[in-house]
Amino acid sequence: MTTRYHYDEQLEDLHLKILKLGSMVEEAIDKSIRSLVEHDKALAEEVIDNDDVIDSFTLEIDDECVRIIATQQPLARDLRIIVAGLKLATDLERIADHAVDIAKITERIADEVYIKPLIDIPRMAEMVKEMVKGALDAYVTTDSTRAIEITKLDDEVDGIYKQMFRELLTYMMEDQKNIHQATQFLFVGKSLERIADHATNICEWVIYIDKGIHEDLNK
Amino acid sequence: MTTRYHYDEQLEDLHLKILKLGSMVEEAIDKSIRSLVEHDKALAEEVIDNDDVIDSFTLEIDDECVRIIATQQPLARDLRIIVAGLKLATDLERIADHAVDIAKITERIADEVYIKPLIDIPRMAEMVKEMVKGALDAYVTTDSTRAIEITKLDDEVDGIYKQMFRELLTYMMEDQKNIHQATQFLFVGKSLERIADHATNICEWVIYIDKGIHEDLNK
Repeated sequence: MTTRYHYDEQLEDLHLKILKLGSMVEEAIDKSIRSLVEHDKALAEEVIDNDDVIDSFTLEIDDECVRIIATQQPLARDLRIIVAGLKLATDLERIADHAVDIAKITERIADEVYIKPLIDIPRMAEMVKEMVKGALDAYVTTDSTRAIEITKLDDEVDGIYKQMFRELLTYMMEDQKNIHQATQFLFVGKSLERIADHATNICEWVIYIDKGIHEDLNK
Repeated sequence: MTTRYHYDEQLEDLHLKILKLGSMVEEAIDKSIRSLVEHDKALAEEVIDNDDVIDSFTLEIDDECVRIIATQQPLARDLRIIVAGLKLATDLERIADHAVDIAKITERIADEVYIKPLIDIPRMAEMVKEMVKGALDAYVTTDSTRAIEITKLDDEVDGIYKQMFRELLTYMMEDQKNIHQATQFLFVGKSLERIADHATNICEWVIYIDKGIHEDLNK
């Protein structure tokens, strides 16, 4: 009983850490997009500098998972929770890497006048942030119904990305001076699309915990 | 003694499976690039169709890692080997996803005459394949010296990518008819660059097994 109690405490602590990493990552997405929209190089630098903190915190979570396995030797569903924790920590870290990529694009083009007002990019960013947040909520409550719901947003994100791609292409064709900046916005769109894929991966891990099976929702 | 012997056998089996997944993934990279260079849509389709096989095999490796943890309850270095296995299986699967992205680009543009001969892309592909192969060899032999060596190739890959980016931009500026295809080649370059990052991640896991510490080599 004491061991079980101790295990529950450790698990609670792990969940809190994962949620904390999640909110750090959401903040990174948010700031990187704001830095781009507002031509704010100082904010972009903040995102880039903070990535080391996110990396260390991810490793702390990895170490905690390893420690729980080593000391508690969890089985079945308990073990799946920890394995999913190991996997999704990596997804969160990669999401932060994409935010850094976006911040680097801000640094590259913030001094220029933009070829168009940024509408789709902030809209996509809001959606992917919602996906990340929802996926983590589904993880800590092991709610696979919610997990499946969230993955449906992925199609919407893909839809906006495709529309954005076509629009940027027309800007490039219109004036060759638009080309460099438009390719940068394309990469921002690609990063946001990847973030949505990572959120979908997290949802798949939720289903794995709940049902012990793997479902590929990233189609 | 019997348990230890059994553990060694399971570990050997896990290593073989990871190497097999590695060669499936290398083949996917190889075929996707060949499909692009040779305008071969049938080959591209093969890569896309085979991705399900790679996904299932990755999950089989995940399950095997979980089984080893549950039945052998490994500790310290032994546990780190299994945790690294879980992590790098995901890296391999993501590499295969990038090969699929490249194959989809082949499907999109194979019927067109290319705006330029593809030289840098196959060269980058050779390098990233070498990185993936080397990283997995370093994993099964836990050779962190070799792991560090391999990550140095990442800078070369980044260098080719930057050069390629600049060159494609000039093609786009020269003639607006080049724009769509050039953006597709840019995405191929980006995918190859990401594959190199995943190979670097694998190298970091080798160092983690060997030294019990995390080093960020992806800078």
